[in-house]
Amino acid sequence: MDTQTNFSSNLQPITGYGVAKVLDSAHPGFAMDDLVWGITGWEEYSLISDPKNFFKIQHTDVPLSYYAGILGMPGITAYIGFYELCAPKKGDYVFVSAACGAVGQLVGQFAKLHGCHVVGSAGSPEKVDILKNKFGFDEAFNYKDEPNFDATLKRHCPEGIDIYFDNVGGKMLDAVLLNLRPHARIAVCGMISQYNREQPDGVQNLSLMVSKEARMQGYLATNYYHLYPKYLETILPLIKESKVVYVEDVADGLENAPKALVGIFSGRNIGKQVVAVNCL
Amino acid sequence: MDTQTNFSSNLQPITGYGVAKVLDSAHPGFAMDDLVWGITGWEEYSLISDPKNFFKIQHTDVPLSYYAGILGMPGITAYIGFYELCAPKKGDYVFVSAACGAVGQLVGQFAKLHGCHVVGSAGSPEKVDILKNKFGFDEAFNYKDEPNFDATLKRHCPEGIDIYFDNVGGKMLDAVLLNLRPHARIAVCGMISQYNREQPDGVQNLSLMVSKEARMQGYLATNYYHLYPKYLETILPLIKESKVVYVEDVADGLENAPKALVGIFSGRNIGKQVVAVNCL
Repeated sequence: MDTQTNFSSNLQPITGYGVAKVLDSAHPGFAMDDLVWGITGWEEYSLISDPKNFFKIQHTDVPLSYYAGILGMPGITAYIGFYELCAPKKGDYVFVSAACGAVGQLVGQFAKLHGCHVVGSAGSPEKVDILKNKFGFDEAFNYKDEPNFDATLKRHCPEGIDIYFDNVGGKMLDAVLLNLRPHARIAVCGMISQYNREQPDGVQNLSLMVSKEARMQGYLATNYYHLYPKYLETILPLIKESKVVYVEDVADGLENAPKALVGIFSGRNIGKQVVAVNCL
Repeated sequence: MDTQTNFSSNLQPITGYGVAKVLDSAHPGFAMDDLVWGITGWEEYSLISDPKNFFKIQHTDVPLSYYAGILGMPGITAYIGFYELCAPKKGDYVFVSAACGAVGQLVGQFAKLHGCHVVGSAGSPEKVDILKNKFGFDEAFNYKDEPNFDATLKRHCPEGIDIYFDNVGGKMLDAVLLNLRPHARIAVCGMISQYNREQPDGVQNLSLMVSKEARMQGYLATNYYHLYPKYLETILPLIKESKVVYVEDVADGLENAPKALVGIFSGRNIGKQVVAVNCL
């Protein structure tokens, strides 16, 4: 058996959320020249055999790249996580980690629009500045400068935390548990600090879930796509009236995609990382 | 300043849930000879200045000690945790830790009555026998004999776990996270394995909450006491028809209470630990 051939035959492009134009279609729901978003290959041309979870793009008076972000999966992730799972109330104290990212920046802005007090963490002074001055967070800090997250949260969230939108897990989650208010809600969107780790951080303060009567909910946005039309109705006017803004970090060309992917794990990107493959 | 006197003046009896008879009352809701349950001192006679969360005992055709257990706080804890927070469905795979305890034994029986498949862990062969042969658990194991909880759960819960009723936290919770089914629910009633620890176990597998879309909910039964009358209506017939049984471990006399308390943390008691102070 030729193992090299066998190996090659198993090669598949990496997949990710993409925005694309239909060049040809045998599916009744999609026609040539339709613009769509959904999971495509990292390639110039993708063959989509099952267009489940592909959405036709109806509104083109916004940047099309938004359909990989605020108008796509990250957008609905922020919307569901905050509104459906965190049961926010006006005046709630909200903390968002990875707050400058594709999802976090939206959660923070949604929380501000909802009348919450919002604190965010990010990984550079530049991001902290964006959180406060572009997204309107009440407080923000660079976690890389903070040796003791518990003390940091006590400083920035002296009243405690009603809602934690968790993108990072690990030590930050552990510190949040020490600062929960009664009946706190934690939406677990991701735990990026724990990915690619041989030995994840151990979270030691979970027993506080009992005395604080806290709820922690993990979720995948894909199971909420039936709410996408409702989300679009909500978000499009907010974008057009500049009540919600969206920051993207655009890498130019497929050849820069690997570097962009690696950059996400070191926090090099600012805002939603997108890769411009072929401008539509 | 006489520190010894100062120290003595601060001495208070330990408190805990007790069943008592009213000897005198200045409160319109309670009269002499009423039987009550609520938080009393570890003492023969208690002065209750605020009878909030004290309940009058109406049904005396059951052992009065049951009002410290199945008909009191542990009972409503099991009821709320299982029915209100775990959203059980017939056929769900349920795992209960500390399953022979005051709360766990009820959760397991409720789950069986609800048509679930139920597995329990406890800390002795005798308890495991009671779980299977008295409470009707489908499977049970002695966690002290199991070096690898993940392997143990895979053996006893090969289909995975829909509902975890957590009384212990720590390493067992970590292993449960590895065995969750999609949309699993975890009610966190207590984390006894973590109490009195200088350094709690770190829970490393929380990121599985995301991919499993799991929910973890901590709670305190005291905030659900408005449902106590409904619970009584449910549980009294089940007790009388022997559809639910309750195992107690009775220590005789206040002088044996400290030993009984310490015994709980080593798992020496079998079933709900009560202390008979003065038979009413």
